[in-house]
Amino acid sequence: MKDPEVKLFSLNTTRPLGQKISEKLGILLSDHEEREFEDGEHKIRPLINVRGCDVFVLDSLYSEPKATVNDKLCNLLFFIGALKDAAAHRVTAIVPYLCYSRKDRKSKPRDPVTTRYVASLFEAVGCDRIVTLDVHNLAAFQNAFRCATEHLEGTNLFVEYFAPLVADGNVVVVSPDIGGIKRAEQFRQSLSRRLSKEISQAFVEKYRTGGVISGEKLVGDVSGRVAIIIDDLISSGTTLARAASTCRQHGATKVYAVATHGVFAQASNEVLATPDLEQVVITNTIIPFRLTADIVKDKLTILDTSSLLASAIDRIHHGGSLVELLELT
Amino acid sequence: MKDPEVKLFSLNTTRPLGQKISEKLGILLSDHEEREFEDGEHKIRPLINVRGCDVFVLDSLYSEPKATVNDKLCNLLFFIGALKDAAAHRVTAIVPYLCYSRKDRKSKPRDPVTTRYVASLFEAVGCDRIVTLDVHNLAAFQNAFRCATEHLEGTNLFVEYFAPLVADGNVVVVSPDIGGIKRAEQFRQSLSRRLSKEISQAFVEKYRTGGVISGEKLVGDVSGRVAIIIDDLISSGTTLARAASTCRQHGATKVYAVATHGVFAQASNEVLATPDLEQVVITNTIIPFRLTADIVKDKLTILDTSSLLASAIDRIHHGGSLVELLELT
Amino acid sequence: MKDPEVKLFSLNTTRPLGQKISEKLGILLSDHEEREFEDGEHKIRPLINVRGCDVFVLDSLYSEPKATVNDKLCNLLFFIGALKDAAAHRVTAIVPYLCYSRKDRKSKPRDPVTTRYVASLFEAVGCDRIVTLDVHNLAAFQNAFRCATEHLEGTNLFVEYFAPLVADGNVVVVSPDIGGIKRAEQFRQSLSRRLSKEISQAFVEKYRTGGVISGEKLVGDVSGRVAIIIDDLISSGTTLARAASTCRQHGATKVYAVATHGVFAQASNEVLATPDLEQVVITNTIIPFRLTADIVKDKLTILDTSSLLASAIDRIHHGGSLVELLELT
Amino acid sequence: MKDPEVKLFSLNTTRPLGQKISEKLGILLSDHEEREFEDGEHKIRPLINVRGCDVFVLDSLYSEPKATVNDKLCNLLFFIGALKDAAAHRVTAIVPYLCYSRKDRKSKPRDPVTTRYVASLFEAVGCDRIVTLDVHNLAAFQNAFRCATEHLEGTNLFVEYFAPLVADGNVVVVSPDIGGIKRAEQFRQSLSRRLSKEISQAFVEKYRTGGVISGEKLVGDVSGRVAIIIDDLISSGTTLARAASTCRQHGATKVYAVATHGVFAQASNEVLATPDLEQVVITNTIIPFRLTADIVKDKLTILDTSSLLASAIDRIHHGGSLVELLELT
Amino acid sequence: MKDPEVKLFSLNTTRPLGQKISEKLGILLSDHEEREFEDGEHKIRPLINVRGCDVFVLDSLYSEPKATVNDKLCNLLFFIGALKDAAAHRVTAIVPYLCYSRKDRKSKPRDPVTTRYVASLFEAVGCDRIVTLDVHNLAAFQNAFRCATEHLEGTNLFVEYFAPLVADGNVVVVSPDIGGIKRAEQFRQSLSRRLSKEISQAFVEKYRTGGVISGEKLVGDVSGRVAIIIDDLISSGTTLARAASTCRQHGATKVYAVATHGVFAQASNEVLATPDLEQVVITNTIIPFRLTADIVKDKLTILDTSSLLASAIDRIHHGGSLVELLELT
Amino acid sequence: MKDPEVKLFSLNTTRPLGQKISEKLGILLSDHEEREFEDGEHKIRPLINVRGCDVFVLDSLYSEPKATVNDKLCNLLFFIGALKDAAAHRVTAIVPYLCYSRKDRKSKPRDPVTTRYVASLFEAVGCDRIVTLDVHNLAAFQNAFRCATEHLEGTNLFVEYFAPLVADGNVVVVSPDIGGIKRAEQFRQSLSRRLSKEISQAFVEKYRTGGVISGEKLVGDVSGRVAIIIDDLISSGTTLARAASTCRQHGATKVYAVATHGVFAQASNEVLATPDLEQVVITNTIIPFRLTADIVKDKLTILDTSSLLASAIDRIHHGGSLVELLELT
Repeated sequence: MKDPEVKLFSLNTTRPLGQKISEKLGILLSDHEEREFEDGEHKIRPLINVRGCDVFVLDSLYSEPKATVNDKLCNLLFFIGALKDAAAHRVTAIVPYLCYSRKDRKSKPRDPVTTRYVASLFEAVGCDRIVTLDVHNLAAFQNAFRCATEHLEGTNLFVEYFAPLVADGNVVVVSPDIGGIKRAEQFRQSLSRRLSKEISQAFVEKYRTGGVISGEKLVGDVSGRVAIIIDDLISSGTTLARAASTCRQHGATKVYAVATHGVFAQASNEVLATPDLEQVVITNTIIPFRLTADIVKDKLTILDTSSLLASAIDRIHHGGSLVELLELT
Repeated sequence: MKDPEVKLFSLNTTRPLGQKISEKLGILLSDHEEREFEDGEHKIRPLINVRGCDVFVLDSLYSEPKATVNDKLCNLLFFIGALKDAAAHRVTAIVPYLCYSRKDRKSKPRDPVTTRYVASLFEAVGCDRIVTLDVHNLAAFQNAFRCATEHLEGTNLFVEYFAPLVADGNVVVVSPDIGGIKRAEQFRQSLSRRLSKEISQAFVEKYRTGGVISGEKLVGDVSGRVAIIIDDLISSGTTLARAASTCRQHGATKVYAVATHGVFAQASNEVLATPDLEQVVITNTIIPFRLTADIVKDKLTILDTSSLLASAIDRIHHGGSLVELLELT
Repeated sequence: MKDPEVKLFSLNTTRPLGQKISEKLGILLSDHEEREFEDGEHKIRPLINVRGCDVFVLDSLYSEPKATVNDKLCNLLFFIGALKDAAAHRVTAIVPYLCYSRKDRKSKPRDPVTTRYVASLFEAVGCDRIVTLDVHNLAAFQNAFRCATEHLEGTNLFVEYFAPLVADGNVVVVSPDIGGIKRAEQFRQSLSRRLSKEISQAFVEKYRTGGVISGEKLVGDVSGRVAIIIDDLISSGTTLARAASTCRQHGATKVYAVATHGVFAQASNEVLATPDLEQVVITNTIIPFRLTADIVKDKLTILDTSSLLASAIDRIHHGGSLVELLELT
Repeated sequence: MKDPEVKLFSLNTTRPLGQKISEKLGILLSDHEEREFEDGEHKIRPLINVRGCDVFVLDSLYSEPKATVNDKLCNLLFFIGALKDAAAHRVTAIVPYLCYSRKDRKSKPRDPVTTRYVASLFEAVGCDRIVTLDVHNLAAFQNAFRCATEHLEGTNLFVEYFAPLVADGNVVVVSPDIGGIKRAEQFRQSLSRRLSKEISQAFVEKYRTGGVISGEKLVGDVSGRVAIIIDDLISSGTTLARAASTCRQHGATKVYAVATHGVFAQASNEVLATPDLEQVVITNTIIPFRLTADIVKDKLTILDTSSLLASAIDRIHHGGSLVELLELT
Repeated sequence: MKDPEVKLFSLNTTRPLGQKISEKLGILLSDHEEREFEDGEHKIRPLINVRGCDVFVLDSLYSEPKATVNDKLCNLLFFIGALKDAAAHRVTAIVPYLCYSRKDRKSKPRDPVTTRYVASLFEAVGCDRIVTLDVHNLAAFQNAFRCATEHLEGTNLFVEYFAPLVADGNVVVVSPDIGGIKRAEQFRQSLSRRLSKEISQAFVEKYRTGGVISGEKLVGDVSGRVAIIIDDLISSGTTLARAASTCRQHGATKVYAVATHGVFAQASNEVLATPDLEQVVITNTIIPFRLTADIVKDKLTILDTSSLLASAIDRIHHGGSLVELLELT
Repeated sequence: MKDPEVKLFSLNTTRPLGQKISEKLGILLSDHEEREFEDGEHKIRPLINVRGCDVFVLDSLYSEPKATVNDKLCNLLFFIGALKDAAAHRVTAIVPYLCYSRKDRKSKPRDPVTTRYVASLFEAVGCDRIVTLDVHNLAAFQNAFRCATEHLEGTNLFVEYFAPLVADGNVVVVSPDIGGIKRAEQFRQSLSRRLSKEISQAFVEKYRTGGVISGEKLVGDVSGRVAIIIDDLISSGTTLARAASTCRQHGATKVYAVATHGVFAQASNEVLATPDLEQVVITNTIIPFRLTADIVKDKLTILDTSSLLASAIDRIHHGGSLVELLELT
């Protein structure tokens, strides 16, 4: 039996990122066909022989103008099914942004636990392994899937970006709310190590009187410092903007925001325009098509995840360690 | 343990049909919540206690202006998951029009066998039983699903409709192509039995010279007769219109078309306007929103499947025979 | 087929709680045999006919002097297997304290995701449903299990206990750390509703300078108030004791601690002796055998979960709503 | 771990074909033992080490004088089980004629869907992949199996055989009934391409008056042409003989019949003796033991499928493309 | 939902036994259709509505002149599949003689573990429960199946038969070989209890010198006693005949043989003719068609298992205890 | 994809054996972490990259002073889970002594079939293959597991040990009870082959009068011979000691006892002290920590299984034959 060859497919809407990964890996994207019929049904199939191959399929699962998140999810599921039917040795789904990760538990009575259902769907079509990046709830993700999973982190990308920017300054890493403190702490430690100096941490807490949010409270000292607010994703941007304003009020000299996934709801065009925010740094897991305001786009920096994803693919294929990959700086 | 009570849910886009079934059964539709978030993700949950209940969920899986077929499919899957998590005793999906039934085999190399994948998805979320109506390929359907399936037929509805209309005439049942001869024959037999007279059959065959369709060929005699062309679904309508034209050329006095599912692609607005077609009879498994031409709408008759579906639900719940239900006239 | 009869078993080490539930339900505990052989292997079997019965098995999965947590887990798994082999209609495991709930994700490289493995083990022996109380990570729990799950909450028990105690006072609900704010907020809301007055919330945050805990920080106002610190479980008690001390330093007039599960490590005998803590309130999900210091035992109050568990069993058997059960006050 | 070595087994009744495949592949047939006990039970086991090997097992599943189709099916299933238990890396069943393929749907109420059950049985014993040739209903086959499947076609064999025979003549490809038109069209196209000339198509339709077959109708022109009637299998031969007679009546100069599987019921000895049929061409997927009439045997040509099957095995083992194999001419 | 009604089917070859069970239960046998096609394939389906029913299917799985054991096994499997597809609530296979029970382990290298494969096949078609009688290897049976199993024993039948026959005599129960000592002991205890007197036991051991059987050795005292030799099944009868001869040589006054399953190989016609054997007692799990010698038939007594099987069905349906059923005398 | 590399882990309590296997294979033991928390829960994880590796994990599942058999079982299961989550290509559990092998059937009503449950637990965590040595009930073992199994035998070790010891003597192999005759026979044959002379066999039978053991009976001749009593395991030692005494009474010149697994209950310290026993030979699958009496320890010989286990690992990894391994002498 031949040694399984790597094949890399990128579904159409995520093709720009796929192209970059393909270049990093030195492997051409394999051809496939995607068709949409007039009745709304899709058909998708590989155009090359994948028998016995170690196949990677890239698709970032967020809604786009031309395809809803469910369209993309079904499309990816059916493509995985077709690849397995075409005798692929192993199919790994590379899903930089994993849909329905925020639907991770019953918050209200009889809520769906959609994260688990999505996991079951991937398994149902024969997916062998799923790789994602900075998922919203790591424990939910690691418990939901029974096929293999890999979880990547964007921390190193952010550290590399901010290190030269803040090398000489007095920096503080800020979590915009309580839930993100762990994430912020991890980033703070990496950045400290990278800059060989201790960086401090702070976080913003919504203050309640009688159950109602009555104000923002900043825990930690930002005065005279460059603040880097970090979150996993930006949707309306309200949390970020409020945190930025609080930081500025407490004397932060400059405020950066960084998040892995730029979901950007319509509202963010206005919300993020606030002069309190110097720069908004995201990655290219999502193409921010809802972000149309020039004033916001001008301060947007998009970091490229293709090297990280390419390395992950390479290590998965060759049996390398992802633990080491995430530790490298 | 209590005797499992029937609960009937209808997803929003199929609610008009659900309302009718609810009335026929004398059971109120149970409340549920459907939400769409700005990022395109959905959330759906029952608003009542379903513990230990025998739950039926209605959703017809075709694309609509507000929801793609994949949106509806995912929505239904996640709702079934939520119902099972909410301790429903049994969940039966009533899917009058089952999506991806025409993607039932590999026609081209490495095609997806989407019918089977869809079956796997239903099973993955814990669906106990799926009920559909006049599916495109019965053998594919009955082999694909490993959860329980029930297949209903609209034949009796059509017979009841046409019987008074053609009781005195000289009638011929016509299949618009070779693939539909079995379906037409079944209808012909039922109509003959209902009218206690022998009705003849004909079919249209596309004639090829050198692999190219060079004309229509009518097998059987339609001259001086009322022709009823029958198919499982109408998409562009081209096949039907061609068959109608052929029938008229061979002397049919009047031509009716009947099909269970009115998919109606954009083109059908023009195609079906042909004066060759007297009437187009479909059922309410699909709301024909793409059909906007008044000239076609005027000759459209929509038969109601709610009694059939209600009876099926009643028999499934009480252990009655679906075989007998389909035999009754 | 007969209507499935309820049968209730309690494994030996959890028998005192089982006895109480049995009385609440008005159903005798069914007999079973547990043997330990000299080679350390166990054997366990029902001594009555369970064919076609709706069987509930109670076992709280924590280590005890006579049986390690793994002994108890295996014992319960093998008993469920034996019940299914003996033709039980349905087996529901009632596990007030679910072991390995804190091993819910990879914190270090290549960590086990033990929560998920435990879920798989329950499914492997045919467990139909598992019921637990105030599990450590709800999302992990709801994603890990693919057999049915029910999650109960002790909030109402705590509200009922504290309502008369603090009816006239000025009360504040305190989370001892950031992770528990959601739990505290839920308790605060219930207590407010029960007392028909708005109760405030506070929380303690460990303050770090340069990544090192340099002090406690109290967010919210406790001065002149009775503080109720709430957590899901008490192990060494250090977090609680520190929070109590902080509250007292900030002027709290009295400090209560409440938690569902009294794990009580050896250290807690000393740590909880602090005069800062007025009372320690737990439930009887765990028999606190490691708590031997009289000074701590004297301020211990153990609330009884048997009514809650009995009601849950009753509703699961009869198809009642657990959502409503948890909402009742 | 060693690279999985190919091993080829042929069950006894299909050994002649196995021998040929073995020669084509240049691989000796591996030894196995088949025993039948006096109580009718069988035992079958490999006699060589198959640990870590890529094992192919050949068996054509039709009834024979010494073994019913069910004997052969059970035998093959148990052998696959034994191979997996003996640590084979992968087991591929090569089943040129797949039993129960015509039991592919419910034709009558509560019919078995035996195709699906057979698929489940193969999966139950751990079969990794099943390969068959010209199965009766492709969609049923591709939906029924959840282990991997490969579908081969005999078209190229037929084209190679007929090309020299009819190179100079005026040829028409005839389907003996409506159900086979697709198959005939595929053969017609391949033969046209091979001979670089356009060959025409015709088909025979049973004509009904009042639901009763009252005659044969030929659609298409056969006059003055050599007709090749093609079907998937020949059982009683009645359909074929009737089609041949119709062709002759319409002026066909010579009539050949071709089918992949020569099932040959007892009746075919008489039926196929008709002088209307010049030659009957089948393949060696079935040994035609019921065909005893010399007059029929004299016009029988049996094409050898061993090269096709050997190539399929070779490509499956080495990761080659079966799509390309079937396209080659 | 209606209370699941009992339905009882008996496959054709086991119909005489089915008829008796039907009478004992006061339930008519339900109609089904069994067809064999000329190509050797079978079709089998229920002819009545089984939706929501508690269905029992009787078939004893041994080879018969008209159907091999594999034919019967496949037939039963496909019928179970059809019943599940026809929406039976539960399907219980009543298999008095379970085929392939003696193929329960690897005796030779790479042997099939056919018992386990057969278990997998039953599960694959959706069998809910399998009931058998005096299976060859109980541990193998109870480990192999993952669907529910019930194991019945014929002991009480034998006790009831022999009690009056040997009430006054001096009796010894003899195992014909070492493997059957446990079975003999169980029978001895029951018979002792029934007759309220202690009955002794003996067994025959094949004596080997240098690995070769060089003689029979009787352990225990049979002199002047009526010997009852007991085994699970009789195949060639050689073991029994040898044991009988040994007993007679050691002074047994009379020798009876008893076994649940009368497989009776061809040889048994001669072997069992020995005057050493007074009577051969079997049950009606197998119709002894190979037993044609009048001399043997004359001393054959066939006990009826229909009451035992009917009681088991009744208890399985109504939730009664099979443990108690087997204990009753 | 890289060729899967062998990795060998040994859980802590079985580390001495692991160390020896590691040396035989020339492969270092890989590092892992085992922690026990104060609440009795364990955590275990690999400390090296195992992605794509062929991992073998050694653990012998018997109770030890520091860990109950259930602790060890859970520990092993969770480690296998962690290895699979860490992307191991294949995980093989090497379990020289497999717990719960004697709980292999229902002996009393509603007994657990623990062997099968244990099998299900191994499968639930993703174990690919389990290897054990001289399991108590081979048929139960081979039927219970649906993941791959390998069964090794210590026979050759015993033959090698005894061959020089008894080369010149007159030897008889003795089974201490009826259940072990097959095992003894296998050893007798191997020893005969090894010494090129025929060795005789005997066995001890407990003699019953009226169902009560009234004495020992020796079948076979031991007079003037060296007797080797063989069993699968030694627990209290009573059976062995009785057999030895019987042999001596019948004139055996010397009595050796040999068994694979030295479970050694407390009582064995006294029981095995009998002067009738010359030597007690076991293997190192179990560390005999309960054996504290010097008089017994002095006659204990422990054979090393590490070469056998190392060879098995080597052959499993490289696709070698275990059948041949067990046949070699």
